[in-house]
Amino acid sequence: MADTHLREIRQSRQEILKGSFLHAFRDTVTLPDGATTQREFIVHPGAVMVIPLLLDADGSVRVVLERQFRYPVDRVMVEFPAGKLDANEASLACAQRELMEETGYRATQWARAGVLHPVISYSTETIDIWFARGLTLGERKLDACEFLDVITAQPDELLQWCRDGRVTDAKTLTGVLWLQNFLSGAWPLDWQNAA
Amino acid sequence: MADTHLREIRQSRQEILKGSFLHAFRDTVTLPDGATTQREFIVHPGAVMVIPLLLDADGSVRVVLERQFRYPVDRVMVEFPAGKLDANEASLACAQRELMEETGYRATQWARAGVLHPVISYSTETIDIWFARGLTLGERKLDACEFLDVITAQPDELLQWCRDGRVTDAKTLTGVLWLQNFLSGAWPLDWQNAA
Repeated sequence: MADTHLREIRQSRQEILKGSFLHAFRDTVTLPDGATTQREFIVHPGAVMVIPLLLDADGSVRVVLERQFRYPVDRVMVEFPAGKLDANEASLACAQRELMEETGYRATQWARAGVLHPVISYSTETIDIWFARGLTLGERKLDACEFLDVITAQPDELLQWCRDGRVTDAKTLTGVLWLQNFLSGAWPLDWQNAA
Repeated sequence: MADTHLREIRQSRQEILKGSFLHAFRDTVTLPDGATTQREFIVHPGAVMVIPLLLDADGSVRVVLERQFRYPVDRVMVEFPAGKLDANEASLACAQRELMEETGYRATQWARAGVLHPVISYSTETIDIWFARGLTLGERKLDACEFLDVITAQPDELLQWCRDGRVTDAKTLTGVLWLQNFLSGAWPLDWQNAA
């Protein structure tokens, strides 16, 4: 992809914040017309999200969700399980770890749906999107400082929550786009057995 | 909503970055179990996204999209028109301004679909989701430092791009969830005439 009429080229980089969580840089860049500007952004290690499918006894599907207080938006959010990659951790290993730690579920089958960028204007973050099925429930192992409820919902119920504003988390809304099209048969997945 | 087993309470606040774009704080908070921790996050003025519907001569629908280089993710992204609220600007006024400035389109009818939170773990940002129809094309007025292509796509084509990874921007993927359910009739909208 050439796109030289759109691309910006880095001239120099300055670290502007090294917090315990946020790590930010200010780059000086050359614009397509040759002018110079600055871009400030967060550098993020990457993350994963899991869409866990439960098969009910009658054959109907439910999904596993979390209710978690999110301090920056000052409210309890309904979201799919998710978490940051540890150093050198593979995406699937992270998905399996986060699902187990946060919800107690382990899955026998996994499928990678794709990737999303939550905030392209000021963060490098990517979130890999995984589906999980063949779930069995064990003990969860929350991190210190982590408090969350695990709930389940039928897909129709979850869609209603997206429509009426009870779900506003963009990664979860993206997960629901995948869920709806997977369940309709429009977007089949390539399942693999867990190691 | 009580949720006292989940909520975190602010003890104190410290500004840790005042950039030209990024504004970050570190709050000391009390956790539900009484322990203390810190939360670092970006404070954002809020934004809007527009899903512009074009009616073709044969009655079929196309949507207006942008191709824009996004420096933090180092690639050209396909996205719905969007932008930040100016100080004291109302959401609809911002949606109308951003659509006109970035694409040149003005719309006769508008409908607010809902709101999304792009990054609940480290930003206060909200994005109001608007649909626009009755489009007429005029001159666009890009900001300095803004370079973008305006394209159109059929809904089925856009859905394919979401599935195959050509669209990975979370706000746009959320817009596609709304678009798909609006076009199917599942999520009707409440249209209002432009002032």
